[in-house]
Amino acid sequence: MTERQTHHASVVAEYLIAPDPQQARLTRPVKGRDHTGALVELSVVEERPLTIYLNRQEIVTAMTIGDYPEYLALGFLRNQGMLHPQDVVTGVDYDEELETVVVRTEVETTYEEKLQKKTRTSGCAVGTVFGDMMEGLEGVKLPEAEVRSSWLYALAHKINRTPSLYLEAGAIHGTVLCQRDRPLVYMEDVGRHNAVDKIAGWLQSTGTDVSDKILYTTGRLTSEMVIKTAMMGIPVLVSRSGFTAWGVEIAQDLGLTLVGRMRGQRFVCLSGEHRLVRDMDPADVPTEDSRNRRKGAR
Amino acid sequence: MTERQTHHASVVAEYLIAPDPQQARLTRPVKGRDHTGALVELSVVEERPLTIYLNRQEIVTAMTIGDYPEYLALGFLRNQGMLHPQDVVTGVDYDEELETVVVRTEVETTYEEKLQKKTRTSGCAVGTVFGDMMEGLEGVKLPEAEVRSSWLYALAHKINRTPSLYLEAGAIHGTVLCQRDRPLVYMEDVGRHNAVDKIAGWLQSTGTDVSDKILYTTGRLTSEMVIKTAMMGIPVLVSRSGFTAWGVEIAQDLGLTLVGRMRGQRFVCLSGEHRLVRDMDPADVPTEDSRNRRKGAR
Repeated sequence: MTERQTHHASVVAEYLIAPDPQQARLTRPVKGRDHTGALVELSVVEERPLTIYLNRQEIVTAMTIGDYPEYLALGFLRNQGMLHPQDVVTGVDYDEELETVVVRTEVETTYEEKLQKKTRTSGCAVGTVFGDMMEGLEGVKLPEAEVRSSWLYALAHKINRTPSLYLEAGAIHGTVLCQRDRPLVYMEDVGRHNAVDKIAGWLQSTGTDVSDKILYTTGRLTSEMVIKTAMMGIPVLVSRSGFTAWGVEIAQDLGLTLVGRMRGQRFVCLSGEHRLVRDMDPADVPTEDSRNRRKGAR
Repeated sequence: MTERQTHHASVVAEYLIAPDPQQARLTRPVKGRDHTGALVELSVVEERPLTIYLNRQEIVTAMTIGDYPEYLALGFLRNQGMLHPQDVVTGVDYDEELETVVVRTEVETTYEEKLQKKTRTSGCAVGTVFGDMMEGLEGVKLPEAEVRSSWLYALAHKINRTPSLYLEAGAIHGTVLCQRDRPLVYMEDVGRHNAVDKIAGWLQSTGTDVSDKILYTTGRLTSEMVIKTAMMGIPVLVSRSGFTAWGVEIAQDLGLTLVGRMRGQRFVCLSGEHRLVRDMDPADVPTEDSRNRRKGAR
């Protein structure tokens, strides 16, 4: 192994699930011509439709890179409040050829009942999804975890150095489930919401305790990202990117710790400041190496 | 006026619609604490729900910064193939308090009929929207316009220097309708699809000819972006960002000229190379000034 490979192997060893940028079906070589007119071949991320069913009910067609379809389906349904913690999942069946995944529950969920009622008047579930999501958050009380700035700096450093589809092919978002200064599960997808939903599906499948977890994302902190994090019960959400006013407002209402614009030694805590312990002098944080600097997907 | 203001005024003068970053309702001051623990106040973009109706049919709730709701609604319905060129729009009514916009047509559109039939079996329109979009593209023939590399360089230069919400507050996407080397209509929104839909709504409202237009976006070139551009009949789509394999494939199928990763003197043409004339030596393109370098929304 070269020095770089050894370094990568030691970074990846910490993860339970790390990105697999070499997996053949996630990227495709695409030919083009550059600014000089020269032929170039680029490695480009795939984007495939995946239709998610809840029992016999078609719910949505998501555009995804295509890894972990079962986690994506489970997590999507869970984060949208369509699947409740008390629903017993009896199977998650992925059909690669049909590009479908069916989540089966022991009994018909209340969501299907609700949907059937609603469609009579509104005709489409899209308009009601958001309302349902906020509904699921009434009475949510996020755990009183501690988060140290030294962990945040360590996480950013490790995640930026983890071999990923982003570094391989760009045009993709990443979300990482972390515990203290350790990144555990790193999911990527063409849409930042899919990456988060895959984390939610993994949490649901493994029954992992979330009270001491931190969610790190390359994407912007919009209302949907904040709501999804709170739906998972994770008390801390961190991003390299910016935020919207409503994302901040919802985080404040829910008492979620929201940290944005985390680059090098800088960050801004916008909500849930009480969980944050500044235990490291920002001057001791190494400046970001431009080669490893993530620009994020756009 | 200072030198900088004069420069901005001359850049903005070219536009029919330029961003209005000073408009009070688009941003909000948000307080936080930075990495040193110091109190900071930041200007942050708004994000509001807007529910779009087609006649009496509720279609979708979009999250938007809130400017040009009428263009957003019209453009969304048009780009989703829910509103056809032959449908006569009799009114577009925005209600700021209810956060709704209703697009009224002379006769019930075929879409509403279709939706009512589909909801009986599938229960939700989301899963069918994509199919409908591709449907609207059968037989699409994009115009044989010419696009010169000198125009692309000039557009990138001007757009990067245009005062915008992005430069003011970040965390936002921009899409610009252009003609030759002139930017005409610059729309921004929290979601890149909304920015494109607002352009489509403007085109629909003004009846502007699209055959010689170029669409420039800060966002990634995904399948949806390519499909929306083709739905508008615009033959050229350009971005600073990357692309997905399927976005490229659809552009090639439709014969759309797709240019990605446009930064400084570099770009890659991935499809529709026949429209592109490389009339400028890339060595003559000034390198990007880091102060004006856009990092895009994530």
